This record gives sequence, C-alpha cells and structure tokens, in this order.
Amino acid sequence: MTPPPGPSSPNAHPAMKFATLKDGSRDGQLVVVSRDLGTAHYATGIAHRLQQVLDDWGFLAPQLQHLYDSLNAGRARHAFPFDPRQCMAPLPRACQCIEGRAYPHHAALECRLAGAEPPEALRRAPLLRQATGDAALGPHDDIVAVSEALGIDFGAGLAVVTGDVPRGSTPAQALDGIRLVMLANTVALRSLEAMERERGQAPLQSRPATAFSPVAVTLDELGDAWGQGRVHLTLQTAWNGRKVGLCDAAEGMDFDFGQLIAQACQTRALRAGSIVGSGPVGHPDGTKGYASIAEKRCLEALQDGQPATGYLQAGDTVRIEMKGPGGQSLCGAIDQTVVVLAESQE
Amino acid sequence: MTPPPGPSSPNAHPAMKFATLKDGSRDGQLVVVSRDLGTAHYATGIAHRLQQVLDDWGFLAPQLQHLYDSLNAGRARHAFPFDPRQCMAPLPRACQCIEGRAYPHHAALECRLAGAEPPEALRRAPLLRQATGDAALGPHDDIVAVSEALGIDFGAGLAVVTGDVPRGSTPAQALDGIRLVMLANTVALRSLEAMERERGQAPLQSRPATAFSPVAVTLDELGDAWGQGRVHLTLQTAWNGRKVGLCDAAEGMDFDFGQLIAQACQTRALRAGSIVGSGPVGHPDGTKGYASIAEKRCLEALQDGQPATGYLQAGDTVRIEMKGPGGQSLCGAIDQTVVVLAESQE
Repeated sequence: MTPPPGPSSPNAHPAMKFATLKDGSRDGQLVVVSRDLGTAHYATGIAHRLQQVLDDWGFLAPQLQHLYDSLNAGRARHAFPFDPRQCMAPLPRACQCIEGRAYPHHAALECRLAGAEPPEALRRAPLLRQATGDAALGPHDDIVAVSEALGIDFGAGLAVVTGDVPRGSTPAQALDGIRLVMLANTVALRSLEAMERERGQAPLQSRPATAFSPVAVTLDELGDAWGQGRVHLTLQTAWNGRKVGLCDAAEGMDFDFGQLIAQACQTRALRAGSIVGSGPVGHPDGTKGYASIAEKRCLEALQDGQPATGYLQAGDTVRIEMKGPGGQSLCGAIDQTVVVLAESQE
Repeated sequence: MTPPPGPSSPNAHPAMKFATLKDGSRDGQLVVVSRDLGTAHYATGIAHRLQQVLDDWGFLAPQLQHLYDSLNAGRARHAFPFDPRQCMAPLPRACQCIEGRAYPHHAALECRLAGAEPPEALRRAPLLRQATGDAALGPHDDIVAVSEALGIDFGAGLAVVTGDVPRGSTPAQALDGIRLVMLANTVALRSLEAMERERGQAPLQSRPATAFSPVAVTLDELGDAWGQGRVHLTLQTAWNGRKVGLCDAAEGMDFDFGQLIAQACQTRALRAGSIVGSGPVGHPDGTKGYASIAEKRCLEALQDGQPATGYLQAGDTVRIEMKGPGGQSLCGAIDQTVVVLAESQE
C-alpha cells in the first residue's frame, strides 16, 4: 500500500464518505463509500471503527483519502455494492452528544401558542440539550415504542461529528473542529416529554433514540454547499411516502454549527467523536412544510385552536434525505418504520 | 495460563477491583487492583480497556477473576505497586451517563427555601438528568475552571457501571445489570447553572466534568455492605482537609440504584458501559454534614436568611472516600485541587 502523505500534504481537508456496516459487533465495521454511494470498501488495514479515525485523524485520514480516491476511480480491488440497509449509524457509539436549537422557529411558535413573546435569550445564544450517544440507530432500523399513546414524533435535522475542540473556542475556531456531517432523525415521545416537563426534568426518557443517515461526509465533500457553518441544501422529509418538509437547511438556521459548538465549549473541551445536532430544521415563515409533527400541531393550534394531526402510528414510515445540486443523494436516506410493541391503551 | 472457568462456574458474580492507568492514550490501560489497593497487574492478554470487559463480561470476567485471585495471593508474576495518582477514571469514556436524584434531601431543602412543599413527583420517582460520559476526570486530576465567579462546587456521590439492561426492566431486574460501583465527584458551576435555568435549559455547561474514584469494584467485592440496591457505608467528604460530610450512603437514599436504572430504561435499553450516578448523597436530618456546597448554602439560607459559605476557590482541595467496615479504603480516594485559569472578575 502506498505510504500515507506527510503532514504537509494537501489532503489536510479531505473529501470523503464513511459508513459503518453491521457485523454483529457493537461498533460495526468501517467502510469508505464512493461519492455516488454505489460501492464501498472496508477500511481494514487502516481502521476498523470510525472512532479510531476520529481519535487519530491527522494520521489516518490521508490513508483513507487514498482509498476513497481509488474507490471513486474504480481502482479499489475489493469494492462491493453499497447497501444502506446493512448500515449502523456512522458512529454507533459516541461519548458526547449535544443537540442545539439551531432553528428557533418551532420554539418561537410554542411561545406564541402560550401567548408569550419568544424570550430574548432564545435569540442571543442557542439553547443546548445534553443527549446520549449510545442510542444511535442505523438508517433503516425500526422506531420501536411501547405505545402510540406516548406521542411518537420524528425530528429531521443535521448533525456534525467533531474532532478535539478546545475549551473556550470561538465559533470560527469551532468550525475547524468539524470532521463530518450527517442527517439525523431525533425520535421524540411528546406525551412523555410533557410529563417530564411537569416533573421539572429535561427530556430523557422521551428521547429514546436518534437515527443517522447511512453515510457521514467530510465538509470538503459538500463543496460549495458548505458555507458560514451551514449546509445550503434542502432537507426532504417524507411521512408515509408523502413529502411533508422541504426546508433549506441554511435559511432558518439562526445559529450555525460553529456557534452551537462554541456554546457547548464554554466551560469544557469537546473530545474527538462528539456529535452536535442542529435539532429539527425549520423555516421562519413555515411555508416549506415541517420537520417534526409537534411543529405542525403547533401551527394548527395557532390557526384553528387545536391540533389536527396525530402522531406516528404503528407501520408509519419516515424518510429523510438531502440531495446535492446534481440531484444525487448526499448521505443516503434515513428510512424508518414505526413498530409498537404493545398497545397499553385499547 | 489456566483456562477460564466455564459458564457453570461459581464466579458468575465475581469479586474484583479495576482501575485504568494513564498511558497517553484516550482510553488508558486496564489493570486489576488488589483488594488492599496495594498492588496492580496489567490485564493485557485478557483486555486492554474496561469497555471491552463490559462488552463481553461473561467471557472476560472469569479470566480477570483468576488474575485478581492470583494478585491477592501474591502469586501474580508482574505485579507492581498501585499508584492512584496515575489513574484515569475507571471508564474514561462512557457512551451513556445519567445522574439520578437518589437523595431528594437537597431538592426538598431548595423547595422549603422557595417557600414551597416538595412536589409529590419528587417522592414518587427519581428525577434523572442526562449527563455526558466523555468528561470523566481521573481521581487526582485538577478541577479546572475559567473563573471563581462561576460558583465552583463539588458533589460527592456514588455511581454504578452497568452491563446491558433491557428496556422495561423492573428495579429488581435492573439490579442484575450492575457490574461495578465507584465514587463520583460531579463538579457543578452553580452561578452558570442558575443562568441556564433562567434560559430554560437543563444543566450542561454548568456540569463540565465528573471525577471518579481510582478503583471500580464489583458488587460481590462490597460483601454485606451491598443490599437493597444501596451501599451501606459512610461516604466521607473533606474540603481543604476538614471533614465536611460523613453521610451513610444508604440511609438518605430514597431511590436505590435498581429504581434509578429502571426509571432510565422505561423507553429504551441501557447498553454495557452505561454510568448511572446517584447525585450527591444527603442525609434526611442534615446532621451528617454535606456533600455539596450548594446544600450547605441552602441550609444556611433557611436558618439565617442568607448563605454564608462561599464556593470553591483556586487552590482548594476536595477529597472523597469510602471505607469498609475494617477501615480499609474501598475504591481509593478522589483527591482534587481547584485550578482557576483566569479570573475574569477582579
């Protein structure tokens, strides 16, 4: 194998796509995926797990870049067809996971519904929620819930995976720490969330799992679509095959990923392999559909006095995807089906 | 090496002590530590990292038990003196970390201070807080803060590390999932916490790091001190060498570890390597000292109208330890010094 380029290599910002295939283990097997998502190649010999790559990015990324280039050129010897149904989340276990409210649109709607002005604090700095990194689902894994009565909701957003980001980083410095971008579906149990709020507890049991796109891509892979810490592309959300959201992920993003990460780094560093999510995307004027049912219900309640749309039911499907300017899928699609274990309320 | 005992072995519930030594890597090197904390032995050949052991407990624990027995008998060939100052947290990176309010004593005080009755919800089920597992400090690592004005506080408690715990587990089933017990010092930045609350955000930046005891022990290592999901021993907290807390960890524990874990498993499974913390210990009648300065200040405010005790200052030390019935340290001591990077307020 060709020796990796040295530290002065032009590949300091590599363009690459990664996925993690199910192999029965907890962390799966890292593969490099071709730009068109058609083929894949095991990264064996370089790294088995994505966390290893993130831990030692400067050394391993150039080697993976070499493999990625070979794969795209059709020169990789053991390439095989890429099947997103075999994917775990790109990073199946993360030790840090934070979700920011990058799109305060929905929160502002909730305030209006409660008859209040959106608080100034919501405009000044992004609200963050401590999430967990062990509940990552693969893109085709079922959304499993105990009961429909819990108010099963989707939440279509973006997430980045960081390298080491020092404490006190500025938003500009924080942007340098971003390694990968992927799509996320943060499942929420809205009825349970309301009960948690009443008890004075932040969402925890009401956030049982987050699914991620089959593929995570580097920023350079995004090309011109990446700018000002935002992805300038449309996030498509479909519910039971019907497109319900077509939001430009940049337009309504009041706080970019640099601001989200910097906010999280105020008092401590983020370590390599941290996931920072944007929360559900949202459009300020609400004309581009919705990224969570809660948002839709909020709009209905404001307009008609009460929500009309129900939450997810057993058998429902949710599909989240983002396409590049050429119409090609960027990270592959999240495509999940709701499975309800036992209906406790007849 | 003797082959590991089979599945019918009496070692299904092994008695062992583990630590992780700093070696420049992110996950450190797993060692087995003798019962008296005097000597240690690398677990190399069995496992390098504690997470590996937790992932494959049934297969690896019996092999480690064999090494532990040899070490205690003075028969381990490459034993060396155990130095807790070389320790990382036993599990330096955890993908799931939840802190429960197992001792509602402090929360009840806060309610009384606010002139309210402690809500019924606080008595029915434990409140949980989603924490992060990537901010684990070693027992002798400094508590680093940007400013004393942030209100630097300690929080002396216990934490367990679990194996896989299925969704919907009962408290009794959840107890079976506990693999290890250790001590924890959850550092809190109280002024920042108050600002977060005002913004409608749960503690996140105000919980920059949690330190853990040098050693994590199995339940059987606790012997009779483990019962009803509680540790029946005194947790000692010293501030600048002065003992400020001597709380029986079982007495004020309204919710045992089985209840905490079951509460966390309502809607999803916990995976091997999850940390569940008790929150600061507390004694119902408040006569056994305090486990966080916030608790002390709350008591002062109730008695005298305002708090008298200030938060931690640069150079302050915090020591947390638990001793067995024979006076021997169970997990070693957390012993930290406060370092303030830059005082922003003169």
